[in-house]
Amino acid sequence: MKDTLKIGTKEFTSRFLLGTGKFSLEKTAEVISAADAQIVTMALRRVKEAGSSNILEYIPDTVTLLPNTSGARNAQEAVRIARLAKAVGCGDFIKIEVIRDTKYLMPDNNETVKATEILAREGFTVLPYISPDLNAARDLVDAGAAAVMPLAAPIGSNKGLLTKDFIQMLIENIDLPVIVDAGIGKPSEACAAMEMGADAVLANTAVATANDVAAMAGAFRMAVDAGRKAYLAGLGRVLNQGSDASSPLTGFLED
Amino acid sequence: MKDTLKIGTKEFTSRFLLGTGKFSLEKTAEVISAADAQIVTMALRRVKEAGSSNILEYIPDTVTLLPNTSGARNAQEAVRIARLAKAVGCGDFIKIEVIRDTKYLMPDNNETVKATEILAREGFTVLPYISPDLNAARDLVDAGAAAVMPLAAPIGSNKGLLTKDFIQMLIENIDLPVIVDAGIGKPSEACAAMEMGADAVLANTAVATANDVAAMAGAFRMAVDAGRKAYLAGLGRVLNQGSDASSPLTGFLED
Amino acid sequence: MKDTLKIGTKEFTSRFLLGTGKFSLEKTAEVISAADAQIVTMALRRVKEAGSSNILEYIPDTVTLLPNTSGARNAQEAVRIARLAKAVGCGDFIKIEVIRDTKYLMPDNNETVKATEILAREGFTVLPYISPDLNAARDLVDAGAAAVMPLAAPIGSNKGLLTKDFIQMLIENIDLPVIVDAGIGKPSEACAAMEMGADAVLANTAVATANDVAAMAGAFRMAVDAGRKAYLAGLGRVLNQGSDASSPLTGFLED
Amino acid sequence: MKDTLKIGTKEFTSRFLLGTGKFSLEKTAEVISAADAQIVTMALRRVKEAGSSNILEYIPDTVTLLPNTSGARNAQEAVRIARLAKAVGCGDFIKIEVIRDTKYLMPDNNETVKATEILAREGFTVLPYISPDLNAARDLVDAGAAAVMPLAAPIGSNKGLLTKDFIQMLIENIDLPVIVDAGIGKPSEACAAMEMGADAVLANTAVATANDVAAMAGAFRMAVDAGRKAYLAGLGRVLNQGSDASSPLTGFLED
Repeated sequence: MKDTLKIGTKEFTSRFLLGTGKFSLEKTAEVISAADAQIVTMALRRVKEAGSSNILEYIPDTVTLLPNTSGARNAQEAVRIARLAKAVGCGDFIKIEVIRDTKYLMPDNNETVKATEILAREGFTVLPYISPDLNAARDLVDAGAAAVMPLAAPIGSNKGLLTKDFIQMLIENIDLPVIVDAGIGKPSEACAAMEMGADAVLANTAVATANDVAAMAGAFRMAVDAGRKAYLAGLGRVLNQGSDASSPLTGFLED
Repeated sequence: MKDTLKIGTKEFTSRFLLGTGKFSLEKTAEVISAADAQIVTMALRRVKEAGSSNILEYIPDTVTLLPNTSGARNAQEAVRIARLAKAVGCGDFIKIEVIRDTKYLMPDNNETVKATEILAREGFTVLPYISPDLNAARDLVDAGAAAVMPLAAPIGSNKGLLTKDFIQMLIENIDLPVIVDAGIGKPSEACAAMEMGADAVLANTAVATANDVAAMAGAFRMAVDAGRKAYLAGLGRVLNQGSDASSPLTGFLED
Repeated sequence: MKDTLKIGTKEFTSRFLLGTGKFSLEKTAEVISAADAQIVTMALRRVKEAGSSNILEYIPDTVTLLPNTSGARNAQEAVRIARLAKAVGCGDFIKIEVIRDTKYLMPDNNETVKATEILAREGFTVLPYISPDLNAARDLVDAGAAAVMPLAAPIGSNKGLLTKDFIQMLIENIDLPVIVDAGIGKPSEACAAMEMGADAVLANTAVATANDVAAMAGAFRMAVDAGRKAYLAGLGRVLNQGSDASSPLTGFLED
Repeated sequence: MKDTLKIGTKEFTSRFLLGTGKFSLEKTAEVISAADAQIVTMALRRVKEAGSSNILEYIPDTVTLLPNTSGARNAQEAVRIARLAKAVGCGDFIKIEVIRDTKYLMPDNNETVKATEILAREGFTVLPYISPDLNAARDLVDAGAAAVMPLAAPIGSNKGLLTKDFIQMLIENIDLPVIVDAGIGKPSEACAAMEMGADAVLANTAVATANDVAAMAGAFRMAVDAGRKAYLAGLGRVLNQGSDASSPLTGFLED
């Protein structure tokens, strides 16, 4: 049986989502290919950018687009951007981002729930980006979300799994795919998120700030796959204290 | 140019070493294959076990054997076991383990240096297992070691990279391969060790205590490769504070 | 100039708040005294308990009562409990706790904001207990809260400062006292919260689960004071790598 | 019964040792007083400094001097410095520091054991500074040490309890006072070391790099006392997962 990720009505074999917000358009195709990504996020602004350059030209047709509502400061703006995204041909997957302040860029969970409710009713496949809060996640389930996207750390920080314990609560208690988004800085952290039982990981800044962007995209993809494999294989116990010999220790020389 | 690991006069394309001390003999071949391991450690006792079963029958010829001196409580015993290992056909790679106590099983760095000096002079390719101590590692360089194998955590504990800062010192200051050994419990931790610049990782208990042992061996191999790839790709910066927008944030709706 | 904590119109010299939910009534007075606490929380139920025993008899008159709304599952219930608390003589300080589920007991930030708004308008001094979310905290400022009480970890877990980075955001960006509440398990963790610039710390389970409850209350008080003192004294820099000799290192023997 | 720290034949009520290597001489008395320190370390060079200024003039008579052997690169040099310290009137307490490199300043455990053996036989009360290695600590017990002083992190780094798990091994297995030395950067970290069961903590750089040096010394003293008190009071359990209500949660409104 295949281990696939189902979001809405679609099924994916890759569990690594790629953000494109920090690459040049020219790099985009190469990085998507190196990551072998099947879902790619982008800001709607980059779809609509003036002149001839449009990010969509750089994304293969086989990839599912996940436009985000970045720029939205409340539910109404997010809803409006989502509708525009659909209108310009990005499909009906939408990542909701509602951000009120420009320093920490922390998502507004409350407005996100409201936008999710409206858009899910309109038939969108809604993936809300949130602070990992169990109550907000339950509200999102009720609102018709197709997945939840809790942040690991402030966006763009590369600080890693700071919210680990709270993401774990979502994994254990929310009956939707949990996609860890924002703040993951290293493949090992993406791997750790998958080992915990996350369904997928999204990275953007961690890839974009690497020296070799395409190679880092590939490293992330491998680490995500390794983490998924380890989760399915069942991790071994961790000792609270002491040690446990790997090899027979005593009596050898007395044999 | 190929990225290979050189130990003594040999060259390897895999950077994941597999310990075999906790598998049944029957599992050994399957796990080696799943890990695609090129170096495999084993206790000499298992080579010499009574009756027809000998671990060597389960290890492919293409694999480099790395017998360890487990059971040795001082340099002299380690030297004696190393010579026996060579005599019974295990080759001249030897992992030195000198352990005095049976609770924490912490290696005796001092005796390990002594054994390394003797065995290196005799032509062995010596890989000493140590507590990650910069001074001891320098003594091992002088003693003729072919690599250093610092522990991440107490052996068999699966506790992960507890000694991270001290392994980093070895990576930066010791001009020998640094192979992280003991205590690594999850593929993500192996990946993190490689991202730091370690040359290879060995796991045993973490694989042996998984539900699906062969699958976990495969997950480790992938995670080690991902970590190496990330190291070579150059990790991005980590913000001390704040955030950094992945997507253009402002003005969208004003366009 | 005295370093005091101002909440609403009151001023306190102690920055350690004590929860009483897990002590026997008889222990309460002793623990309050050992902690030298000036603010003490209690569940309204314990005030109203049947028969002659009432927790208020065990709390000195000089202590400010901070009844909580535990048991409330939404804003309306919290408001009702707050009014009852005032009616039975607990004063106008109220800690808002709105909890919808019984497994993780995570506060519902959204309902908490609603209750805060209503009660602040009624003249209560409102201290809302929240998941440390910058947007929710800003909403609480707007709603008229007198302080914010972000959790460090799930209540009663003794897991420590899991939300450190997110509490730091509140400290830096919210112009109200930040009182770290829930999950603090050791005096060292209370001390660390204060070193970060938190205004106060509340503990309950960590004290109640100690072997010697009164001594642990005293240890917390000292640790909170030490952390405050360190914060005011200005912590030294942390090196990213390397070391820095404390003593003159070289040339001694050459003198 | 008084809770005292016994080192050699002396008994102390303070468990906070102060290093003086980074203060001006003028500050020394003030800081010792703020810390209420009973043991103070200093480099012998500062005792012997040219001209009229001698650190000993700034240290109260009631304080036990703990000269260190900083500058020693091997056992012989350490022994020579120890004897000089005694000759110039510093008494027979000696902290052995043997450091071979100038980048990480990591102590040489092996040479330290040798120096300890020689000096203990000569009647010194020997406090060796080491990397926290269980085998080396056992050798130090055999060599006649009066305490062991494991490092928390590279000296002067203020990085905190990086070696926590390995210090814990010493605390549980070595029948000598364990004094955590080097790398502690904040009072909360000193407190945590004491909560683990360490017998004392030494700080120097963390105090010297604070904005208000005397206040920070006082904060450290309080935090060490708080940690000791918490250790003796018996810390409460930490939940692996979930939460535990501090207050009665249900049924309130149904009463």
